[in-house]
Amino acid sequence: MIILKIGGNVIDNPPVLETVLRDFAGWQGSKILVHGGGKIANRLMEKIGIVPKLVEGRRVTDRETLEIVTMVYGGLINKNIVAALQSFSCNAIGMTGADANIIPAAKRPVKEVDYGFVGDVNADCIAGDVLCGFLRAGLVPVLAPITHDGAGLLLNTNADTIASTVAITLSKAFKVKLVFCFEKKGVLRDPDDDDSVIDFIDEDLYSRYKSEGIITKGMIPKLDNAFAALRSGVAELRICSPDGLNSGGTKIMVNG
Amino acid sequence: MIILKIGGNVIDNPPVLETVLRDFAGWQGSKILVHGGGKIANRLMEKIGIVPKLVEGRRVTDRETLEIVTMVYGGLINKNIVAALQSFSCNAIGMTGADANIIPAAKRPVKEVDYGFVGDVNADCIAGDVLCGFLRAGLVPVLAPITHDGAGLLLNTNADTIASTVAITLSKAFKVKLVFCFEKKGVLRDPDDDDSVIDFIDEDLYSRYKSEGIITKGMIPKLDNAFAALRSGVAELRICSPDGLNSGGTKIMVNG
Repeated sequence: MIILKIGGNVIDNPPVLETVLRDFAGWQGSKILVHGGGKIANRLMEKIGIVPKLVEGRRVTDRETLEIVTMVYGGLINKNIVAALQSFSCNAIGMTGADANIIPAAKRPVKEVDYGFVGDVNADCIAGDVLCGFLRAGLVPVLAPITHDGAGLLLNTNADTIASTVAITLSKAFKVKLVFCFEKKGVLRDPDDDDSVIDFIDEDLYSRYKSEGIITKGMIPKLDNAFAALRSGVAELRICSPDGLNSGGTKIMVNG
Repeated sequence: MIILKIGGNVIDNPPVLETVLRDFAGWQGSKILVHGGGKIANRLMEKIGIVPKLVEGRRVTDRETLEIVTMVYGGLINKNIVAALQSFSCNAIGMTGADANIIPAAKRPVKEVDYGFVGDVNADCIAGDVLCGFLRAGLVPVLAPITHDGAGLLLNTNADTIASTVAITLSKAFKVKLVFCFEKKGVLRDPDDDDSVIDFIDEDLYSRYKSEGIITKGMIPKLDNAFAALRSGVAELRICSPDGLNSGGTKIMVNG
Protein backbone atom coordinates (compact mmCIF):
# COMPACT_ATOMS: atom_id res chain seq x y z
CA MET A 1 0.00 0.00 0.00
CA ILE A 2 1.04 3.62 -0.52
CA ILE A 3 0.80 6.58 1.82
CA LEU A 4 1.26 9.91 0.05
CA LYS A 5 1.89 13.06 2.03
CA ILE A 6 1.46 16.35 0.20
CA GLY A 7 2.89 19.54 1.62
CA GLY A 8 1.60 23.07 1.85
CA ASN A 9 3.26 24.30 -1.34
CA VAL A 10 1.44 21.66 -3.35
CA ILE A 11 -1.89 22.57 -1.75
CA ASP A 12 -1.32 26.28 -2.44
CA ASN A 13 -1.00 25.66 -6.19
CA PRO A 14 -4.42 24.53 -7.52
CA PRO A 15 -3.30 23.21 -10.96
CA VAL A 16 -0.41 21.28 -9.38
CA LEU A 17 -2.72 19.96 -6.66
CA GLU A 18 -5.19 18.78 -9.28
CA THR A 19 -2.47 16.91 -11.19
CA VAL A 20 -1.22 15.25 -8.00
CA LEU A 21 -4.74 14.20 -6.99
CA ARG A 22 -5.43 12.85 -10.49
CA ASP A 23 -2.21 10.78 -10.37
CA PHE A 24 -2.98 9.57 -6.85
CA ALA A 25 -6.54 8.62 -7.83
CA GLY A 26 -5.14 6.45 -10.62
CA TRP A 27 -2.85 4.41 -8.37
CA GLN A 28 -3.96 0.82 -7.88
CA GLY A 29 -4.25 -0.84 -4.48
CA SER A 30 -4.75 0.46 -0.97
CA LYS A 31 -3.73 4.05 -0.38
CA ILE A 32 -3.98 6.93 2.05
CA LEU A 33 -3.43 10.64 1.44
CA VAL A 34 -2.13 12.91 4.21
CA HIS A 35 -2.20 16.64 3.61
CA GLY A 36 -0.52 19.58 5.30
CA GLY A 37 -1.78 23.09 5.66
CA GLY A 38 -0.40 25.66 3.28
CA LYS A 39 -0.93 29.37 3.35
CA ILE A 40 -4.74 29.45 3.35
CA ALA A 41 -4.83 29.40 7.16
CA ASN A 42 -2.37 32.32 7.32
CA ARG A 43 -4.38 34.30 4.80
CA LEU A 44 -7.59 33.71 6.75
CA MET A 45 -5.88 34.78 9.97
CA GLU A 46 -4.68 37.96 8.27
CA LYS A 47 -8.20 38.71 7.02
CA ILE A 48 -9.63 38.27 10.51
CA GLY A 49 -6.77 40.20 12.09
CA ILE A 50 -5.24 37.37 14.11
CA VAL A 51 -1.48 37.80 14.43
CA PRO A 52 0.35 34.44 14.31
CA LYS A 53 2.03 33.88 17.66
CA LEU A 54 5.66 32.83 17.56
CA VAL A 55 7.87 31.77 20.46
CA GLU A 56 11.57 31.48 19.63
CA GLY A 57 10.69 31.46 15.95
CA ARG A 58 8.25 28.57 16.32
CA ARG A 59 4.56 28.88 15.69
CA VAL A 60 2.33 28.50 18.73
CA THR A 61 -1.20 27.14 18.37
CA ASP A 62 -3.34 29.31 20.61
CA ARG A 63 -7.13 28.82 20.81
CA GLU A 64 -7.88 31.15 17.88
CA THR A 65 -5.25 29.48 15.71
CA LEU A 66 -6.66 26.06 16.61
CA GLU A 67 -10.11 27.19 15.41
CA ILE A 68 -8.62 28.45 12.16
CA VAL A 69 -6.66 25.27 11.43
CA THR A 70 -9.69 23.13 12.33
CA MET A 71 -11.72 25.10 9.77
CA VAL A 72 -9.09 25.28 7.07
CA TYR A 73 -7.30 21.93 7.36
CA GLY A 74 -10.23 19.82 8.62
CA GLY A 75 -12.88 21.61 6.53
CA LEU A 76 -11.87 23.62 3.49
CA ILE A 77 -8.74 21.77 2.33
CA ASN A 78 -9.79 18.28 3.41
CA LYS A 79 -13.27 18.42 1.88
CA ASN A 80 -12.14 20.01 -1.39
CA ILE A 81 -9.50 17.30 -1.78
CA VAL A 82 -12.15 14.65 -1.08
CA ALA A 83 -14.55 16.17 -3.64
CA ALA A 84 -11.76 16.35 -6.23
CA LEU A 85 -10.74 12.70 -5.63
CA GLN A 86 -14.39 11.65 -5.87
CA SER A 87 -14.56 13.37 -9.27
CA PHE A 88 -11.59 11.17 -10.32
CA SER A 89 -13.51 8.03 -9.23
CA CYS A 90 -11.47 7.62 -6.05
CA ASN A 91 -13.72 6.84 -3.08
CA ALA A 92 -12.07 9.24 -0.63
CA ILE A 93 -13.16 9.75 2.96
CA GLY A 94 -11.80 12.81 4.76
CA MET A 95 -10.86 12.42 8.38
CA THR A 96 -9.10 14.10 11.26
CA GLY A 97 -7.57 12.04 14.03
CA ALA A 98 -10.75 12.57 16.07
CA ASP A 99 -12.94 10.82 13.49
CA ALA A 100 -13.44 7.18 14.47
CA ASN A 101 -10.73 7.97 17.05
CA ILE A 102 -8.07 7.02 14.49
CA ILE A 103 -5.30 9.25 15.85
CA PRO A 104 -5.48 9.95 19.59
CA ALA A 105 -2.79 12.37 20.71
CA ALA A 106 -1.37 13.92 23.85
CA LYS A 107 -1.22 17.69 24.22
CA ARG A 108 2.45 18.57 24.16
CA PRO A 109 3.66 19.17 27.73
CA VAL A 110 4.70 22.72 28.55
CA LYS A 111 8.47 22.85 29.14
CA GLU A 112 10.64 25.80 28.06
CA VAL A 113 8.07 26.63 25.40
CA ASP A 114 4.29 26.31 25.52
CA TYR A 115 3.37 25.28 21.98
CA GLY A 116 -0.31 25.52 22.87
CA PHE A 117 -2.82 23.12 21.30
CA VAL A 118 -0.30 20.84 19.64
CA GLY A 119 -0.75 17.08 19.72
CA ASP A 120 2.05 14.52 19.90
CA VAL A 121 1.19 11.12 18.48
CA ASN A 122 2.70 7.68 18.72
CA ALA A 123 2.27 4.67 16.49
CA ASP A 124 1.04 2.40 19.32
CA CYS A 125 -2.15 4.44 19.73
CA ILE A 126 -3.27 4.73 16.12
CA ALA A 127 -6.43 2.77 15.26
CA GLY A 128 -4.84 0.68 12.53
CA ASP A 129 -7.78 -1.76 12.61
CA VAL A 130 -10.24 1.00 11.67
CA LEU A 131 -7.98 2.25 8.86
CA CYS A 132 -7.52 -1.34 7.60
CA GLY A 133 -11.31 -1.80 7.64
CA PHE A 134 -11.75 1.30 5.48
CA LEU A 135 -9.02 0.18 3.07
CA ARG A 136 -10.61 -3.29 2.79
CA ALA A 137 -13.94 -1.58 2.02
CA GLY A 138 -12.24 0.22 -0.90
CA LEU A 139 -12.24 3.59 0.85
CA VAL A 140 -9.32 5.98 0.58
CA PRO A 141 -8.69 7.89 3.82
CA VAL A 142 -7.65 11.53 3.38
CA LEU A 143 -6.09 12.66 6.65
CA ALA A 144 -5.98 16.27 7.86
CA PRO A 145 -3.23 17.24 10.33
CA ILE A 146 -5.62 17.54 13.28
CA THR A 147 -5.77 15.07 16.16
CA HIS A 148 -7.58 15.01 19.52
CA ASP A 149 -6.86 14.24 23.14
CA GLY A 150 -9.90 12.01 23.74
CA ALA A 151 -11.24 14.52 26.27
CA GLY A 152 -12.94 16.77 23.73
CA LEU A 153 -9.95 18.84 22.66
CA LEU A 154 -8.77 19.02 19.05
CA LEU A 155 -5.03 19.41 18.54
CA ASN A 156 -2.77 20.60 15.73
CA THR A 157 -0.30 17.92 14.61
CA ASN A 158 2.48 18.02 12.03
CA ALA A 159 1.37 16.30 8.80
CA ASP A 160 4.77 14.61 8.21
CA THR A 161 4.47 13.05 11.66
CA ILE A 162 0.94 11.84 10.92
CA ALA A 163 2.07 10.30 7.64
CA SER A 164 5.05 8.47 9.14
CA THR A 165 3.20 7.36 12.28
CA VAL A 166 0.28 5.96 10.27
CA ALA A 167 2.80 4.30 7.93
CA ILE A 168 4.52 2.63 10.89
CA THR A 169 1.20 1.37 12.29
CA LEU A 170 0.04 -0.02 8.94
CA SER A 171 3.42 -1.71 8.35
CA LYS A 172 2.17 -4.43 10.72
CA ALA A 173 -0.49 -5.36 8.14
CA PHE A 174 0.94 -4.16 4.81
CA LYS A 175 4.19 -3.55 2.93
CA VAL A 176 3.97 0.24 3.12
CA LYS A 177 5.52 2.70 0.67
CA LEU A 178 5.66 6.24 2.03
CA VAL A 179 6.02 9.16 -0.39
CA PHE A 180 6.60 12.74 0.74
CA CYS A 181 5.66 15.12 -2.07
CA PHE A 182 6.79 18.74 -1.76
CA GLU A 183 7.91 21.62 -3.97
CA LYS A 184 11.53 20.43 -4.53
CA LYS A 185 12.56 17.53 -6.75
CA GLY A 186 13.97 15.71 -3.73
CA VAL A 187 16.74 16.26 -1.21
CA LEU A 188 19.11 18.70 -2.93
CA ARG A 189 22.90 18.75 -2.78
CA ASP A 190 22.71 22.51 -3.41
CA PRO A 191 19.51 24.25 -2.25
CA ASP A 192 19.91 26.83 -5.04
CA ASP A 193 20.15 24.20 -7.78
CA ASP A 194 16.83 22.45 -8.28
CA ASP A 195 18.48 19.75 -10.36
CA SER A 196 21.05 18.73 -7.75
CA VAL A 197 18.83 15.92 -6.46
CA ILE A 198 20.54 13.28 -4.34
CA ASP A 199 19.25 9.96 -5.73
CA PHE A 200 19.49 8.00 -2.53
CA ILE A 201 20.50 8.47 1.09
CA ASP A 202 21.18 5.81 3.69
CA GLU A 203 22.10 6.43 7.32
CA ASP A 204 25.84 6.59 6.64
CA LEU A 205 25.40 9.07 3.80
CA TYR A 206 22.97 11.07 5.94
CA SER A 207 25.61 11.44 8.71
CA ARG A 208 28.22 12.47 6.12
CA TYR A 209 25.92 14.99 4.38
CA LYS A 210 25.00 16.51 7.73
CA SER A 211 28.63 16.83 8.85
CA GLU A 212 29.53 18.37 5.47
CA GLY A 213 26.70 20.89 5.80
CA ILE A 214 24.96 19.58 2.67
CA ILE A 215 21.81 18.62 4.57
CA THR A 216 20.74 21.39 6.94
CA LYS A 217 17.78 23.13 8.58
CA GLY A 218 14.26 21.94 7.72
CA MET A 219 15.50 18.82 5.92
CA ILE A 220 16.95 17.42 9.16
CA PRO A 221 13.64 16.81 11.01
CA LYS A 222 12.16 15.56 7.71
CA LEU A 223 14.94 13.01 7.29
CA ASP A 224 15.05 12.05 10.98
CA ASN A 225 11.34 11.35 10.65
CA ALA A 226 11.98 9.33 7.47
CA PHE A 227 14.68 7.13 9.01
CA ALA A 228 12.56 6.58 12.12
CA ALA A 229 9.74 5.32 9.86
CA LEU A 230 12.08 2.96 7.96
CA ARG A 231 13.58 1.58 11.17
CA SER A 232 10.05 0.95 12.46
CA GLY A 233 8.91 -1.19 9.57
CA VAL A 234 8.05 1.07 6.63
CA ALA A 235 9.27 -0.74 3.51
CA GLU A 236 10.10 2.12 1.15
CA LEU A 237 10.38 5.88 1.42
CA ARG A 238 10.77 8.53 -1.23
CA ILE A 239 10.87 12.34 -1.17
CA CYS A 240 9.89 13.95 -4.46
CA SER A 241 8.14 16.78 -6.30
CA PRO A 242 4.73 16.50 -8.00
CA ASP A 243 6.62 15.74 -11.27
CA GLY A 244 8.38 12.80 -9.65
CA LEU A 245 5.32 11.30 -8.04
CA ASN A 246 5.56 8.00 -9.92
CA SER A 247 9.35 7.75 -10.01
CA GLY A 248 12.34 9.93 -9.23
CA GLY A 249 13.21 12.10 -6.27
CA THR A 250 15.35 10.93 -3.37
CA LYS A 251 15.05 7.38 -2.12
CA ILE A 252 15.72 7.03 1.61
CA MET A 253 17.07 3.69 2.84
CA VAL A 254 18.43 2.19 6.02
CA ASN A 255 21.99 0.85 5.80
CA GLY A 256 22.71 -2.49 4.17
CA MET B 1 -32.02 3.18 14.97
CA ILE B 2 -32.23 6.90 15.73
CA ILE B 3 -31.31 9.87 13.59
CA LEU B 4 -31.03 13.10 15.58
CA LYS B 5 -30.92 16.43 13.81
CA ILE B 6 -29.75 19.40 15.84
CA GLY B 7 -30.43 22.92 14.65
CA GLY B 8 -28.36 26.09 14.63
CA ASN B 9 -29.73 27.43 17.90
CA VAL B 10 -28.57 24.32 19.73
CA ILE B 11 -25.11 24.56 18.17
CA ASP B 12 -24.82 28.25 19.10
CA ASN B 13 -25.32 27.48 22.80
CA PRO B 14 -22.25 25.52 24.03
CA PRO B 15 -23.65 24.27 27.38
CA VAL B 16 -26.90 23.15 25.70
CA LEU B 17 -24.93 21.52 22.89
CA GLU B 18 -22.81 19.65 25.42
CA THR B 19 -25.90 18.33 27.22
CA VAL B 20 -27.46 17.20 23.94
CA LEU B 21 -24.26 15.45 22.84
CA ARG B 22 -23.92 13.75 26.22
CA ASP B 23 -27.53 12.48 26.01
CA PHE B 24 -27.03 11.36 22.41
CA ALA B 25 -23.77 9.57 23.31
CA GLY B 26 -25.66 7.58 25.94
CA TRP B 27 -28.34 6.28 23.57
CA GLN B 28 -28.05 2.57 22.85
CA GLY B 29 -28.13 1.11 19.35
CA SER B 30 -27.31 2.48 15.93
CA LYS B 31 -27.50 6.24 15.59
CA ILE B 32 -26.58 9.15 13.35
CA LEU B 33 -26.29 12.84 14.20
CA VAL B 34 -27.02 15.52 11.60
CA HIS B 35 -26.10 19.09 12.44
CA GLY B 36 -27.05 22.42 10.97
CA GLY B 37 -25.04 25.58 10.81
CA GLY B 38 -25.80 28.23 13.36
CA LYS B 39 -24.46 31.74 13.53
CA ILE B 40 -20.74 30.95 13.53
CA ALA B 41 -20.63 31.12 9.72
CA ASN B 42 -22.36 34.53 9.76
CA ARG B 43 -19.97 35.84 12.39
CA LEU B 44 -16.97 34.67 10.37
CA MET B 45 -18.38 36.30 7.23
CA GLU B 46 -18.82 39.57 9.14
CA LYS B 47 -15.23 39.43 10.41
CA ILE B 48 -13.91 38.88 6.89
CA GLY B 49 -16.24 41.50 5.45
CA ILE B 50 -18.37 39.22 3.27
CA VAL B 51 -21.92 40.52 2.98
CA PRO B 52 -24.48 37.67 2.92
CA LYS B 53 -26.19 37.72 -0.45
CA LEU B 54 -29.97 37.52 -0.40
CA VAL B 55 -32.34 37.17 -3.35
CA GLU B 56 -36.01 37.68 -2.51
CA GLY B 57 -35.18 37.22 1.16
CA ARG B 58 -33.46 33.90 0.60
CA ARG B 59 -29.80 33.32 1.22
CA VAL B 60 -27.70 32.65 -1.86
CA THR B 61 -24.58 30.50 -1.61
CA ASP B 62 -21.97 32.26 -3.73
CA ARG B 63 -18.41 30.92 -3.97
CA GLU B 64 -17.17 32.83 -0.92
CA THR B 65 -20.13 31.66 1.17
CA LEU B 66 -19.52 28.08 0.05
CA GLU B 67 -15.91 28.32 1.29
CA ILE B 68 -17.11 29.67 4.63
CA VAL B 69 -19.75 26.97 5.17
CA THR B 70 -17.27 24.27 4.11
CA MET B 71 -14.87 25.56 6.77
CA VAL B 72 -17.41 26.16 9.50
CA TYR B 73 -19.92 23.31 9.00
CA GLY B 74 -17.52 20.70 7.59
CA GLY B 75 -14.55 21.69 9.76
CA LEU B 76 -15.10 23.68 12.94
CA ILE B 77 -18.58 22.51 14.00
CA ASN B 78 -18.35 18.94 12.70
CA LYS B 79 -14.92 18.19 14.21
CA ASN B 80 -15.70 19.79 17.57
CA ILE B 81 -18.89 17.71 17.80
CA VAL B 82 -16.90 14.59 16.92
CA ALA B 83 -14.24 15.37 19.54
CA ALA B 84 -16.94 16.00 22.17
CA LEU B 85 -18.74 12.73 21.34
CA GLN B 86 -15.44 10.84 21.49
CA SER B 87 -14.92 12.27 24.99
CA PHE B 88 -18.30 10.74 25.90
CA SER B 89 -17.14 7.31 24.61
CA CYS B 90 -19.20 7.59 21.42
CA ASN B 91 -17.15 6.52 18.39
CA ALA B 92 -18.20 9.38 16.12
CA ILE B 93 -17.00 9.87 12.55
CA GLY B 94 -17.62 13.26 10.98
CA MET B 95 -18.59 13.34 7.34
CA THR B 96 -19.90 15.56 4.59
CA GLY B 97 -21.84 14.09 1.69
CA ALA B 98 -18.60 14.03 -0.32
CA ASP B 99 -16.90 11.66 2.11
CA ALA B 100 -17.22 8.06 0.90
CA ASN B 101 -19.66 9.61 -1.60
CA ILE B 102 -22.47 9.14 0.92
CA ILE B 103 -24.66 12.00 -0.30
CA PRO B 104 -24.30 12.89 -3.96
CA ALA B 105 -26.37 15.93 -4.89
CA ALA B 106 -27.37 17.94 -7.93
CA LYS B 107 -26.63 21.66 -8.05
CA ARG B 108 -30.03 23.36 -7.92
CA PRO B 109 -31.03 24.44 -11.43
CA VAL B 110 -31.22 28.19 -12.02
CA LYS B 111 -34.87 29.19 -12.58
CA GLU B 112 -36.34 32.48 -11.31
CA VAL B 113 -33.66 32.55 -8.60
CA ASP B 114 -30.06 31.38 -8.79
CA TYR B 115 -29.41 29.96 -5.32
CA GLY B 116 -25.76 29.38 -6.21
CA PHE B 117 -23.91 26.41 -4.83
CA VAL B 118 -26.88 24.64 -3.27
CA GLY B 119 -27.29 20.90 -3.59
CA ASP B 120 -30.60 19.06 -3.94
CA VAL B 121 -30.56 15.47 -2.73
CA ASN B 122 -32.78 12.48 -3.20
CA ALA B 123 -33.06 9.30 -1.16
CA ASP B 124 -32.36 7.01 -4.15
CA CYS B 125 -28.78 8.31 -4.45
CA ILE B 126 -27.67 8.09 -0.84
CA ALA B 127 -25.04 5.42 -0.14
CA GLY B 128 -27.09 3.55 2.47
CA ASP B 129 -24.76 0.53 2.21
CA VAL B 130 -21.76 2.60 3.31
CA LEU B 131 -23.69 4.13 6.21
CA CYS B 132 -24.97 0.67 7.25
CA GLY B 133 -21.38 -0.62 7.14
CA PHE B 134 -20.27 2.15 9.48
CA LEU B 135 -23.20 1.51 11.84
CA ARG B 136 -22.44 -2.22 11.89
CA ALA B 137 -18.81 -1.37 12.75
CA GLY B 138 -20.09 0.56 15.76
CA LEU B 139 -19.30 3.95 14.26
CA VAL B 140 -21.62 6.93 14.71
CA PRO B 141 -21.76 9.14 11.61
CA VAL B 142 -21.96 12.89 12.29
CA LEU B 143 -23.20 14.55 9.11
CA ALA B 144 -22.48 18.16 8.15
CA PRO B 145 -24.93 19.89 5.75
CA ILE B 146 -22.49 19.83 2.82
CA THR B 147 -22.90 17.58 -0.21
CA HIS B 148 -21.11 17.33 -3.58
CA ASP B 149 -21.95 16.97 -7.24
CA GLY B 150 -19.49 14.16 -8.01
CA ALA B 151 -17.61 16.46 -10.38
CA GLY B 152 -15.47 18.09 -7.71
CA LEU B 153 -17.92 20.72 -6.48
CA LEU B 154 -19.04 20.92 -2.86
CA LEU B 155 -22.62 22.12 -2.29
CA ASN B 156 -24.56 23.62 0.60
CA THR B 157 -27.59 21.49 1.55
CA ASN B 158 -30.30 22.03 4.17
CA ALA B 159 -29.62 19.91 7.25
CA ASP B 160 -33.32 19.01 7.75
CA THR B 161 -33.35 17.63 4.21
CA ILE B 162 -30.20 15.61 4.84
CA ALA B 163 -31.68 14.16 8.03
CA SER B 164 -34.98 13.15 6.44
CA THR B 165 -33.40 11.86 3.22
CA VAL B 166 -30.89 9.71 5.10
CA ALA B 167 -33.73 8.50 7.36
CA ILE B 168 -35.76 7.46 4.29
CA THR B 169 -32.79 5.58 2.80
CA LEU B 170 -32.01 3.75 6.04
CA SER B 171 -35.68 2.83 6.53
CA LYS B 172 -35.06 0.06 3.99
CA ALA B 173 -32.70 -1.61 6.49
CA PHE B 174 -33.85 -0.32 9.89
CA LYS B 175 -36.88 0.86 11.85
CA VAL B 176 -35.83 4.52 11.89
CA LYS B 177 -36.80 7.08 14.52
CA LEU B 178 -36.12 10.64 13.40
CA VAL B 179 -35.83 13.41 16.00
CA PHE B 180 -35.58 17.09 15.11
CA CYS B 181 -34.14 19.01 18.05
CA PHE B 182 -34.44 22.79 17.98
CA GLU B 183 -34.87 25.72 20.39
CA LYS B 184 -38.67 25.35 20.89
CA LYS B 185 -40.35 22.62 22.94
CA GLY B 186 -42.13 21.35 19.82
CA VAL B 187 -44.68 22.68 17.35
CA LEU B 188 -46.43 25.48 19.24
CA ARG B 189 -50.12 26.40 19.12
CA ASP B 190 -49.09 29.97 20.00
CA PRO B 191 -45.57 30.98 18.93
CA ASP B 192 -45.38 33.42 21.87
CA ASP B 193 -46.24 30.75 24.44
CA ASP B 194 -43.41 28.27 24.81
CA ASP B 195 -45.64 25.89 26.73
CA SER B 196 -48.35 25.64 24.06
CA VAL B 197 -46.80 22.49 22.59
CA ILE B 198 -49.07 20.44 20.31
CA ASP B 199 -48.57 16.83 21.47
CA PHE B 200 -49.23 15.20 18.14
CA ILE B 201 -50.07 16.11 14.59
CA ASP B 202 -51.30 13.86 11.83
CA GLU B 203 -52.01 14.90 8.25
CA ASP B 204 -55.64 15.83 8.96
CA LEU B 205 -54.67 17.98 11.95
CA TYR B 206 -51.84 19.52 9.92
CA SER B 207 -54.30 20.63 7.21
CA ARG B 208 -56.63 22.06 9.85
CA TYR B 209 -53.84 23.89 11.76
CA LYS B 210 -52.57 25.37 8.52
CA SER B 211 -56.02 26.58 7.44
CA GLU B 212 -56.57 28.05 10.92
CA GLY B 213 -53.24 29.89 10.75
CA ILE B 214 -51.88 28.01 13.76
CA ILE B 215 -49.03 26.50 11.78
CA THR B 216 -47.32 29.09 9.57
CA LYS B 217 -44.05 30.24 8.02
CA GLY B 218 -40.91 28.22 8.79
CA MET B 219 -42.83 25.36 10.40
CA ILE B 220 -44.53 24.55 7.08
CA PRO B 221 -41.44 23.33 5.18
CA LYS B 222 -40.29 21.55 8.37
CA LEU B 223 -43.58 19.67 8.65
CA ASP B 224 -43.87 19.01 4.90
CA ASN B 225 -40.42 17.48 5.17
CA ALA B 226 -41.52 15.45 8.22
CA PHE B 227 -44.66 14.02 6.55
CA ALA B 228 -42.66 13.20 3.41
CA ALA B 229 -40.24 11.19 5.55
CA LEU B 230 -43.06 9.32 7.31
CA ARG B 231 -44.82 8.55 4.02
CA SER B 232 -41.51 7.19 2.66
CA GLY B 233 -40.91 4.66 5.40
CA VAL B 234 -39.59 6.48 8.47
CA ALA B 235 -41.21 4.78 11.48
CA GLU B 236 -41.39 7.59 14.03
CA LEU B 237 -40.81 11.32 13.99
CA ARG B 238 -40.61 13.81 16.82
CA ILE B 239 -39.85 17.55 17.03
CA CYS B 240 -38.54 18.68 20.42
CA SER B 241 -36.20 20.92 22.40
CA PRO B 242 -32.97 19.76 24.07
CA ASP B 243 -34.99 19.24 27.29
CA GLY B 244 -37.37 16.88 25.50
CA LEU B 245 -34.71 14.83 23.77
CA ASN B 246 -35.69 11.57 25.43
CA SER B 247 -39.45 12.16 25.53
CA GLY B 248 -41.85 15.02 24.91
CA GLY B 249 -42.20 17.51 22.10
CA THR B 250 -44.53 17.05 19.15
CA LYS B 251 -45.04 13.60 17.67
CA ILE B 252 -45.73 13.66 13.93
CA MET B 253 -47.78 10.80 12.49
CA VAL B 254 -49.42 9.86 9.24
CA ASN B 255 -53.22 9.35 9.38
CA GLY B 256 -54.68 6.17 10.75
